Order: sequence, then structure tokens, then C-alpha cells
Amino acid sequence: MLDAVLARADANLEASLDRLSALIRIPSISTDAAYAAECARAAEWCRMELSAIGFEATVRPTAGRPMVVGHRTDPGAKGPRVLFYGHYDVQPVDPLSLWKTDPFEPTLQTRPDGSREIVARGSSDDKGQLLTFVEACRAWIEATGGLPVPVSVLFEGEEESGSPSLGAFLDANADELRKDVALVCDTNMFDSDTPAIAISLRGLVGEEIEIRAADKDLHSGYFGGAARNPIHVLADILAALHDADNRVTVPGFYAGADEPPPEVAAQWASLPFSAEKFLGGVGLKIPATERGRSVLEAIWSRPTCEVNGIFGGYTGAGFKTVLPAVASAKVSFRLVATQDPAAIREAFRAFVRARVPEDCSVTFHPHGGSPALTIPIESPALTSGRRALEAEWGRPAVMMGMGGSIPIVGDFKRRLGMDTLLVGFALEDDRVHSPNEKYDLKSFHKGIRSWARILGELAA
Amino acid sequence: MLDAVLARADANLEASLDRLSALIRIPSISTDAAYAAECARAAEWCRMELSAIGFEATVRPTAGRPMVVGHRTDPGAKGPRVLFYGHYDVQPVDPLSLWKTDPFEPTLQTRPDGSREIVARGSSDDKGQLLTFVEACRAWIEATGGLPVPVSVLFEGEEESGSPSLGAFLDANADELRKDVALVCDTNMFDSDTPAIAISLRGLVGEEIEIRAADKDLHSGYFGGAARNPIHVLADILAALHDADNRVTVPGFYAGADEPPPEVAAQWASLPFSAEKFLGGVGLKIPATERGRSVLEAIWSRPTCEVNGIFGGYTGAGFKTVLPAVASAKVSFRLVATQDPAAIREAFRAFVRARVPEDCSVTFHPHGGSPALTIPIESPALTSGRRALEAEWGRPAVMMGMGGSIPIVGDFKRRLGMDTLLVGFALEDDRVHSPNEKYDLKSFHKGIRSWARILGELAA
Repeated sequence: MLDAVLARADANLEASLDRLSALIRIPSISTDAAYAAECARAAEWCRMELSAIGFEATVRPTAGRPMVVGHRTDPGAKGPRVLFYGHYDVQPVDPLSLWKTDPFEPTLQTRPDGSREIVARGSSDDKGQLLTFVEACRAWIEATGGLPVPVSVLFEGEEESGSPSLGAFLDANADELRKDVALVCDTNMFDSDTPAIAISLRGLVGEEIEIRAADKDLHSGYFGGAARNPIHVLADILAALHDADNRVTVPGFYAGADEPPPEVAAQWASLPFSAEKFLGGVGLKIPATERGRSVLEAIWSRPTCEVNGIFGGYTGAGFKTVLPAVASAKVSFRLVATQDPAAIREAFRAFVRARVPEDCSVTFHPHGGSPALTIPIESPALTSGRRALEAEWGRPAVMMGMGGSIPIVGDFKRRLGMDTLLVGFALEDDRVHSPNEKYDLKSFHKGIRSWARILGELAA
Repeated sequence: MLDAVLARADANLEASLDRLSALIRIPSISTDAAYAAECARAAEWCRMELSAIGFEATVRPTAGRPMVVGHRTDPGAKGPRVLFYGHYDVQPVDPLSLWKTDPFEPTLQTRPDGSREIVARGSSDDKGQLLTFVEACRAWIEATGGLPVPVSVLFEGEEESGSPSLGAFLDANADELRKDVALVCDTNMFDSDTPAIAISLRGLVGEEIEIRAADKDLHSGYFGGAARNPIHVLADILAALHDADNRVTVPGFYAGADEPPPEVAAQWASLPFSAEKFLGGVGLKIPATERGRSVLEAIWSRPTCEVNGIFGGYTGAGFKTVLPAVASAKVSFRLVATQDPAAIREAFRAFVRARVPEDCSVTFHPHGGSPALTIPIESPALTSGRRALEAEWGRPAVMMGMGGSIPIVGDFKRRLGMDTLLVGFALEDDRVHSPNEKYDLKSFHKGIRSWARILGELAA
């Protein structure tokens, strides 16, 4: 039966591409109010396509761009109920002058090695990825008359502008949207031949600190050497955040920063990941990792502390010999495993307070706090995903860590109690959010086949 | 003879005040081109006043505001030839709304204790101070028919806007202006009852450093923990600049940072200087001095290293989890005694370079470099000044250090080979450069008498 589904997916490819092109041609830029009608048009296009393959699909208004929700449960469906999430909105296209082709007119380009890519805004993020799932459903329905598991879909139209309406929408429609597992297609492969499943996402704690010394800016000629300089206080604190081994020194910081399972660690150690190439791509060559940790571990499974911004005193052209009254920094922590955001925020504040002289003051401004998310590797959905991807790509899927966060995964977990299977076919060089975004035709085609296989495995 | 001169100064006081008022009424703001004609008018007013007391006085054009130069050598004059320097230009007056009276209409106000002050822009800085010298000359001339030493004067009109024309003017007129000693009246007393002579001015070395890591800003989710963060590199460097005793750690930094002479140190130790009051005035209470040094030493005779500005990453509202490509800081060193600006600049650069990882780069931008200036306490002019001030005020003049620089003193030294005697009658609370600037009538009156005595002592 699966062979027939895959054959159908192959036979549909040209038509699938036509549908992707039609969706791409709708300039559904969510962050710019001028494109609100285009977002509504893209939502309606999605609803129609879902309806056309037998989903009960509706466009749902929100305070911002609408959501698209669809359901299809076939009589023979068994196994876990899934909720697939994708987003139909795209990033703005400026600077337009850097685009070689019209960003909203998809062009299929053939590379020197004969492989092909679809160049357009949204081709990869996330219209191409979203349609890999829809086209996989179509192949199942056309080849077998139905879907092997109960499938629901949720397409958002505000992912690129911070998902302001999503949380409330999930809460208001929790009973309708709460399924056994969520599927998300908005991530990368390990490389163009190697599929990947994200098994963890780092959490985040952001803190802005503001150190105040004198009650006004002072002249460094008159006060220099006698009055406290808050930039010095700040630099001392920031320098003290890491030890000589590049480990974070905030007491208790590593509590809960558990290692990945041995199977995962072993896989990572065997990956052909080049730290030289990774760092070389941005002009660096010396890893800034904790002593004894690889670059891959550093970005996939280790917690961090980074200063994202710092400001104090005179920063304009020329020189001004001021002793400023205030200096400030924005500091963030990426968390892994079961590290506790609230405990780390408090530990950091205590660490800072202990280093602020008695006659200075410090103010803290919290900016977000979310724990890391981990998909248990023994979970049934992950096992299904791994089997399906290995069958399609001829090699095991990499169980990768995500260094950043994907807020929807946290929302599904916290608001609906669902774990998420994160499978995506984008590539590092897709120029997502940049001019000349592209999606490999191979990603699109084998992505459709991959989801077809995953649906089959989930029902098995 | 001196008694007659002083009696004349006393008798002239009301007329002296009228002349100060006339000069104040000319709004000679040098930094604003709209007031260029007023500056020219103030220069011409000075020239006329000098001519009226027998100086050969001229207004000299420059690329900016004009200089006023005057000479008078009486047949009986003996002793050192002096060049008195002052400036007739003033700071802008905004915000005007904070002034309680018209800034260019001098008002004589009586305080609760019966003492009086002249409120107006320039009353203290520097029109009042400048005229103390002119009126002292007038008293000598009117009482005795001449000046006891050969006197030249140089009045500048661009001091408040950075003296752009001064260096070239001194060079072009070096033969005319090079005298045995310069006199400058642009400094403070120790307190309202205690005169002061500045015996040292700290030098300054400014350096801007820019640390570059990656060739673009990076996402801290994707690169955090693996790629070098230039803010961390910068914070480590800045934190390393001072040790736990608050001493500067740059190798060789203290070479030449000699202690003041024992007589000076002994005087300072006996002064009723309150560190609590000094720091409390700006909302601080814990001295940030080198271990074992008093606040007075810290600002008068110790070298410093201060970060005057720092900037890197995202500093706007909210949060952005960026690993910036660049972080920069402006660092300045105040120098004392014979510390060498060029050597310190090089030592600092080497200190920074040694702490920049191999795959990062650092760029240095120099901003000024000048050595400290010291007036030898055994010099004849200083001795004359001390004698005269003690006679007038009934207590020894404080031989104070100046924490900041007064560029003219360096120019006189380097361009004309002249040492400078710095005597001023301004007070800490004169609100110089701020709204409601004032000059105590006592400063004006006893300032005139002080210069009259100094001229006498110089000739003795």
C-alpha cells in the first residue's frame, strides 16, 4: 500500500509544484498591514486546497491574520491523532534590489550538477515545507482513499511577526486542537542527503541589567580615580560570568543541564560535522566552547550565557571624557534539559547584586523565560519518524538539538500537553529571511515522500 | 606703595563692577556662529579698556573669533616679563528656562549671610576672573603711574569651543608672546576662604578600541556557546585593566607617576577635605580609589584608567538574541608627573592585543595624547604667588593638583617654553557652564587685590 502512495506522490510532483507556485504567488507578508488582504487570500487558498482533498477546513479569524484549521478522520484510520502545524505567512522581501528574480514569481532553476531549486520568498519558509505534508496527505487519499491516521492541521498566518494571536487561539480551541502528537515542518535537514529530527530545543532567559553609580554623568578629569565608574562595575560582572574553561559561573547554573542519552551522544560523535566549516562560514576559527565540549554539543545540548548588548557612557564620534552615571547590558541564557528558568534568573540576579558596590544600584528588567524542550527518544512518534526517514533517505535521521527556540513547540506542550515531532527538509543554504530564498526540489519531493512514510509508520 | 595700590583697588570696586557688567552684557557665545559679531564686540571692548589704561592693545583676526593682545612696559618695571591669559567668550545659556534672571543682565544678589554674588553668564567663567587682572593693573597704574613688571595680555575668544585657532596664533606670534612666565586666571579657590595655586595638571591619553569577531551579527540560538562573542572579549579586557587594589594593570603604567614633593603631600594631608562630601555631592559614598590613596590624591596626583563609553550588540528597547560582530569601548588614561603618553598608548595596545583571540581582530583609534604638566614648587613665580596670596587671604595658598587638563598651559609650555602660574578665584558652586552662573563679589574684589599683590611680589 505504501508503494502505491509513494508512486502517487511521484506522479503528482508536477501538479504539487504548480500548487506550491500558486501559493507562493500570494504575497502573504504578515508583518506589513498593507498585505493583510493577501494573508486572508493565502488562508482561503489553503482552506480550499484542504477542502479539495476532503478535509473539513475552515478559516478562523483572529485579532491579526486568520488561522486555517482542517480535520480529516477516515473510517480505517488508527494510531495516534496528529495535529500538523505550518505557517502560510512569509517574511518581507526588502531589499528588493538584491533579488535576482521576482520574489513572488517562483522560478525553477537548474544548478550545474543538474539538481533543481525553487527560488521565491516562502519557497522554503514555510510554504514549501507546509505543502510537503499536504501533498503527502493527498497521495495517501488519492492512492488509498483515505488517511492512515486521524489528521488535523493548523496553519498560522503570523509566525513571521511573532505569533501574537496563537496562544489565545490555542487556548480558545484547545479541545479541538489537542491531539496525541503535533507534527511541525519548519526545520532543517542535517545536510542535503541526511534527514534530521529535532529532539531538543534550548530554552531562554533574558535579563537586562542597569548599573547606576553617581546621580549624574561626571567629568573624568574631576572625578576620575575617585568615583565609581558603572562601566567598570558592569565589565567586572560580565567578565566574571565565565571561568577560564568558559563555563558559566552563576551558582547552580548547571543544575538540570543533563547530558543527552548515550545513543544520541554516540550518534553526534559519529557525525561528519566540521567545526572549521561551521565557524569558518562566519569568519571565525577558534571554538569558544566550554573546555572539553565540541562545537556541535555547544550549540545542540549545552547551556550558554551570552551578552547580547551593552551600552554606557559616550559612544558617538570622537571622545568625551565622561564618567557615566549608568551602564547597562542585555544578557541571555540558553537552557537545556531540565534547567529551571526562574531559578536561573534568581541566581543570576543574586550573582549580580553580590558584585554591585553598596553605593551603586542595579535594576533588572526580565525579558522572557522558557524552559528547554526535549522530545523523549523512546516516544512512539519519534520512533515512527526515525523509521520512516531512514527508509526514505537510506540513512539514519540525525537526532539533532536545536540551539534556538521554536515557540509553537512550547505552546503545544504547555497549553495542549502535546509533544511535537519536528521534521523539516530545509537546508542551511536556503537563504531563509534573505533575498533569493530557495527550496531544493529534492527537499520538496522527498519531503512529500517522507511525510507519506511517517503517516504510514504512525499507523503501523 | 602696595598699600596705595590696594587702597586704589578698593576705591575702584564699584567702577570695576560697572566694567564687568558692561562686558557681561555682550553675549559673546563663541560656539554659535550667530554670535560672531558679539564676540568681535567683546574683543573690541577689551582692547579699548586696555588702551584706556595705557596698554598698546590690538584686536587680531583669526580664522575664528579674534584675539586681543596688549603690552605695557613701564620704565621702572623689573622682574619677570609676564603674559596674562584669559578668555572673553562664554558658554551658551540654554536651557534658558532654568535661568532665574536674564543671563546677560548681571544682577548683584545678597545672600542670607550678607555676602553678595554677581549672577550672569560669564560672571565667573571667565569675564569676572579676567577682569580681576585688568583691574589690578589699573590700580597699579592709577596709584603708582605704572606696572611693576612688564605685562602682556592675551585674551582668547574661543576657549569654550575648543580653542581651534590658538595653537597657530601662538606659533605665528611666538616672539611677541614668549615671556618669562604665563599667568592664567581660570581656576578655583580651595574654598571661599582659602586661595589656591594649581601646581599640576593631569595629562590624557584616549584610545578607542573595536573588537571584531564574526564577520556578521550571529543568532545566539544557532551560534551561542560556539562562536566568540566580542562583548565577552571586551568585558574581559576592561575588567583586567584594574586589579583588586584598583591599580591599573597595564605593564609599565606607573613609570614616571612620581609622588608630589613632601611639602605638598604634607599640606594635602592637613587639608579639611571631606571625601564624604565630595562623593556625597554626586550620590556616592565609597571611594573607588587605589588602595591606600585618599580621594584628594586620587583626583590631584594619581593616574587613572577610565572607560568613558562602551557599545556593542542590541541596545534598543526589548531584546534581541544577537551575538554581535563588533564591540567597542572608549578608554582614557589621566597621566601625572612624567608618565609618557606614547609609551602608555603602546603598552595599552599591547595589553589589549595579548587578550584578543587569534581569530578576532582589534582596531585602535587614538584620541589625543598629552603629558601631565607640573609647575616646580621652587619656581620664583610660584613663590611670589604663594607669598602674595597668603598676605591677602591670611592663610597659605593650597598647592592643588588639577584632575583635568587646561590645554593653554600645555600650549604655553610646548609652543613657547613658558611655565604657567595658575591662580583663580572661582568657587566650586559657581555653576560654571550651567544656568544661574555666579561669581562672588568677594572673589572679584579680593581677586583684584590678589593680582595686585602678585604683580608686586614678582617685581620684588
